[in-house]
Amino acid sequence: MIAVLKNGTSEKQIDSLCTWLKTQGLDVHISKGSEHTVIGLIGDTSKIDAELIESLDIVETVKRISEPFKSANRKFHPDDSIINVGNTSVGGDIFAIMAGPCSVESEEQVMEIAKAVKASGATMLRGGAFKPRTSPYDFQGLKACGIEFLLEAKKETGLPIVTEIMNANHLSLFEEVDVIQVGARNMQNFELLKELGRTKKTILLKRGLANTIKEFLMSAEYIMAGGNENIILCERGIRTFETYTRNTLDLSAIPTLRELTHLPIIVDPSHATGVARLVKPMALAAAAAGADGLMIEVHNDPTHALCDGAQSLTPDAFADVTAAVRKVLDAVKGVY
Amino acid sequence: MIAVLKNGTSEKQIDSLCTWLKTQGLDVHISKGSEHTVIGLIGDTSKIDAELIESLDIVETVKRISEPFKSANRKFHPDDSIINVGNTSVGGDIFAIMAGPCSVESEEQVMEIAKAVKASGATMLRGGAFKPRTSPYDFQGLKACGIEFLLEAKKETGLPIVTEIMNANHLSLFEEVDVIQVGARNMQNFELLKELGRTKKTILLKRGLANTIKEFLMSAEYIMAGGNENIILCERGIRTFETYTRNTLDLSAIPTLRELTHLPIIVDPSHATGVARLVKPMALAAAAAGADGLMIEVHNDPTHALCDGAQSLTPDAFADVTAAVRKVLDAVKGVY
Amino acid sequence: MIAVLKNGTSEKQIDSLCTWLKTQGLDVHISKGSEHTVIGLIGDTSKIDAELIESLDIVETVKRISEPFKSANRKFHPDDSIINVGNTSVGGDIFAIMAGPCSVESEEQVMEIAKAVKASGATMLRGGAFKPRTSPYDFQGLKACGIEFLLEAKKETGLPIVTEIMNANHLSLFEEVDVIQVGARNMQNFELLKELGRTKKTILLKRGLANTIKEFLMSAEYIMAGGNENIILCERGIRTFETYTRNTLDLSAIPTLRELTHLPIIVDPSHATGVARLVKPMALAAAAAGADGLMIEVHNDPTHALCDGAQSLTPDAFADVTAAVRKVLDAVKGVY
Amino acid sequence: MIAVLKNGTSEKQIDSLCTWLKTQGLDVHISKGSEHTVIGLIGDTSKIDAELIESLDIVETVKRISEPFKSANRKFHPDDSIINVGNTSVGGDIFAIMAGPCSVESEEQVMEIAKAVKASGATMLRGGAFKPRTSPYDFQGLKACGIEFLLEAKKETGLPIVTEIMNANHLSLFEEVDVIQVGARNMQNFELLKELGRTKKTILLKRGLANTIKEFLMSAEYIMAGGNENIILCERGIRTFETYTRNTLDLSAIPTLRELTHLPIIVDPSHATGVARLVKPMALAAAAAGADGLMIEVHNDPTHALCDGAQSLTPDAFADVTAAVRKVLDAVKGVY
Repeated sequence: MIAVLKNGTSEKQIDSLCTWLKTQGLDVHISKGSEHTVIGLIGDTSKIDAELIESLDIVETVKRISEPFKSANRKFHPDDSIINVGNTSVGGDIFAIMAGPCSVESEEQVMEIAKAVKASGATMLRGGAFKPRTSPYDFQGLKACGIEFLLEAKKETGLPIVTEIMNANHLSLFEEVDVIQVGARNMQNFELLKELGRTKKTILLKRGLANTIKEFLMSAEYIMAGGNENIILCERGIRTFETYTRNTLDLSAIPTLRELTHLPIIVDPSHATGVARLVKPMALAAAAAGADGLMIEVHNDPTHALCDGAQSLTPDAFADVTAAVRKVLDAVKGVY
Repeated sequence: MIAVLKNGTSEKQIDSLCTWLKTQGLDVHISKGSEHTVIGLIGDTSKIDAELIESLDIVETVKRISEPFKSANRKFHPDDSIINVGNTSVGGDIFAIMAGPCSVESEEQVMEIAKAVKASGATMLRGGAFKPRTSPYDFQGLKACGIEFLLEAKKETGLPIVTEIMNANHLSLFEEVDVIQVGARNMQNFELLKELGRTKKTILLKRGLANTIKEFLMSAEYIMAGGNENIILCERGIRTFETYTRNTLDLSAIPTLRELTHLPIIVDPSHATGVARLVKPMALAAAAAGADGLMIEVHNDPTHALCDGAQSLTPDAFADVTAAVRKVLDAVKGVY
Repeated sequence: MIAVLKNGTSEKQIDSLCTWLKTQGLDVHISKGSEHTVIGLIGDTSKIDAELIESLDIVETVKRISEPFKSANRKFHPDDSIINVGNTSVGGDIFAIMAGPCSVESEEQVMEIAKAVKASGATMLRGGAFKPRTSPYDFQGLKACGIEFLLEAKKETGLPIVTEIMNANHLSLFEEVDVIQVGARNMQNFELLKELGRTKKTILLKRGLANTIKEFLMSAEYIMAGGNENIILCERGIRTFETYTRNTLDLSAIPTLRELTHLPIIVDPSHATGVARLVKPMALAAAAAGADGLMIEVHNDPTHALCDGAQSLTPDAFADVTAAVRKVLDAVKGVY
Repeated sequence: MIAVLKNGTSEKQIDSLCTWLKTQGLDVHISKGSEHTVIGLIGDTSKIDAELIESLDIVETVKRISEPFKSANRKFHPDDSIINVGNTSVGGDIFAIMAGPCSVESEEQVMEIAKAVKASGATMLRGGAFKPRTSPYDFQGLKACGIEFLLEAKKETGLPIVTEIMNANHLSLFEEVDVIQVGARNMQNFELLKELGRTKKTILLKRGLANTIKEFLMSAEYIMAGGNENIILCERGIRTFETYTRNTLDLSAIPTLRELTHLPIIVDPSHATGVARLVKPMALAAAAAGADGLMIEVHNDPTHALCDGAQSLTPDAFADVTAAVRKVLDAVKGVY
């Protein structure tokens, strides 16, 4: 960490700052320029609060050189993490495909979709039981009942299930859920993250609408700091000025996260674009960019989906996407 | 609500759609253009899910003409809401000034700041007991103990207190808290909003980093739909590409919200800019633009604040700001 | 086009508006809702100024249903445009690869890179002679001399050349240049676009940092309205809050533009990310998403590039990228 | 300037870099941390290309500590610049109010508005003769003829005139124009900026839609580097995700620019919001935040304005705004 001091800082102030920094267990290294003095903080600065130092009267700016995330950091865990989920896994050689309806609507619906997506190569079933909706008047999901239907479909097809949690108090309902999703709007619901860190459940953490990659990793770090290292990251589009797509899918997040962390990274092209006919090209692009998997919305009757229907694929369109994804995966085998 | 149909939609499809819409309790009005047919939905469309209709095969786009928020809507509640808080209020003739430390650090600290800000005209004391921090390794607040210290300061000074909640399970700790703050990162934590809607506590709702004004109002609507209409809105900066300030303060939100809603609107220039010396000009600008109040960070020793020190004012600087704010308020009396 | 009228508009005002619209050659269709009256404008509204109508006292909002771009619109030109450039082309079956240095530095440099990129499958040579730089103190390019060096390299290798124009007064220097690039910062330099519309040169138009896809197409329309239909579109990243990459590459622009326009679309992963090691994954992703080509920065000595060196590939790294791109192109043959 | 070296850089590489830096006229200061070595560059680094250094193999990041702008920098020119324009000025004690129509439509129109705005306290007349429009099919302005009409109005009222240039080749038409405006879309049209730097005309430079404050100052620096120091900066809103207003007015740019530069700063609330009824609150906020002036659109018949009518005020509404602005200016006299 580097602290650039303000012009006109006196020797005495510098001494006093250095003394204090040393009490924090750091070594300091002073470098005087023609306009500014710069102090280098040497040692483990990961638990130092940069804003605290930046707040000092004599400090102009502070710049971190080491990353503030540790457990998620590839530097300290060079090998890719492989997260086992039921009879399959995410990360490593298996390309995960999580598919299913935005909202669970009925047992028949989930069962029909589960069978269809399994036939096309899905490795997990996803479906929303608790639904975060912008309006309190929109459909909020079947809740506990929706989880029941997903578990029925799991029993029938063997597919592990992924579903979103919105409230830590509901955790007991998720006991047989294989992967618990934290949605984009809850990426910085730190209380929820801490609670999930105390479990051993696999967590699928979605990037927030307006969150940087570093913040994304810090949210993973919240869960890991509690002892739970079973985390799958999911890029799902960020908010920009462009209005043609619902969000802007940031595929450069894949290789960037690959560098910074050992955690697996999947992509959700359905929510990122909000448009069914953009799902295929973005799924292929994600596969080509080195993603560990995809999360895709599939509905048996998109014209009647209770939410996000505009971005759902039919089972046939999904089968077409997975076939094309396999071709791209073969093509990029060994290129990274 | 207007639905623009795709080119090539048949008469039969149009009939079938209209029939279905009528079963939802709406009247329809069909208008055929040279390229597109447009269906107008007439009646109470506030509880209709626009995405559901947009997902239909034959529909190109859907446009809401009436706003989807009702309880927060000025159209149905033309007079400004005045929210009573202890011996003061927010909205109407009183200009609210909430001031205090980012983090409660000790009883002495809070007491000293409370007395200082009261002397300079603060109408409420704010202070963080539960702190949302990007990193799990940063200081997370004194929690219950912090609330105790705030209540001591309230007893001593008579100032009502404002403090943030991060978890609905902590509600019992907030019983004597006058205003419960929902932070920007929790603006779309719908479970928390619903829980607060079931209370009668006054809620200070902060705008999310990447949330539109309409989404902001929908989050207020979540609380109001539960029966709690005691809401204060707070603009605190949005995330943009500009890096000089921490966020970009969107002051046009004040007159815009004034038009759309009857709820009072305050501004937090401290978090919006993240820079102490920008607090004064932005506080004056907010007062000039018609805000109902301000939330300002004040610390007795900014160089040692445990968080966000860079944006805190000293008590003297705060007194200077409030004096200038009073002048601006006098100047704009009656101009709107 | 649809105009939503304000509440309380009188019959007489509506009549008067309709009469005026009819004098503009449009038919009108009136639809009265419970809260609002909506007027549909029927006929060729492409040359109607929506803002003019929105400015009327009685109008609340205006919404275009047909797109305001005509020459670039796929609806009126269903087949993909193929732009011939020297002995090659962009669009259709040929995948264009434009490669070369950010800045032309010397004849030797350009010649060496030209031969190297040709050997790895580049179809064109790109290099900057006139350089847009944020600072007036940064290197501004070799200008006319740089173009000479590019032409020498073209003579030697047969590769058509692509280079940026910043001033219409320089057009005479571009006579033998095969493709004239308009940079992101000039995407809405309408005077330059109009001047280029009067030529028959092939124009590579880059998307502006903060421009929507619709604005991008309107800028192409500026050139086409002048009679020049030889346009190649280039997605090169948009500005967002994320700071890890220089810009955020918006790959969903590829299928979106594919739908909206017949013009070919290439992608520049070098400028989009600003990081050499992200070029390969983003190039593969672009190929998988259906791009018609790539523009990639290649330098023989990246550690001494006069500008943008951080994002340049060595010739060897470039060869590795093109080999991988070919595999992905084979994989996606026929999938769209 | 500080360069952080990559892990594993050898002593020999460090020596070689330092030797090279010294040949550039800089002193270097080396600081070795536990993870990274940091080199401080001491001396005049304003003309050093940071990207060049960042491109070196052994360098991880580069951070400027001194600003790269010199002529515009308050550090080297502590007093506020006052720009004289005809019989008035911008900066210092005079609060500039530039008012007039978005587009010049006729001599009568301009004359009528000029008289009206003068009566309400405008210090200059602004009007568009050359109009940048997103669509080639929208009205492009009366051009030379529009300037004639403005000059007639100047002769009649004595108000200096402000009008936009889009092409340096038109400069001869601007000989009698008092202030030449460079629009947001041309803020980084560096060729135009350089050409204007060679004149002695006063330039009103508008901030680009997606440009940072630092880039804004670098564009001013382009003009100043040519010898022309008569520059007025204008904040006019930046592009964000919010769609309620056309842009998001960034009023924190006023105090920020005040710190960084000695150039005067005005605000354009009309273009920033795009909504006439938001002009007044944003004008008052700008005055309260310390702006040196305003640019406001006024039209005698907003319902028939050829462009941007939705954001124009009537002369009466403008008079109401200027009266309120005067009150706020009185209130903030001496507060900064």
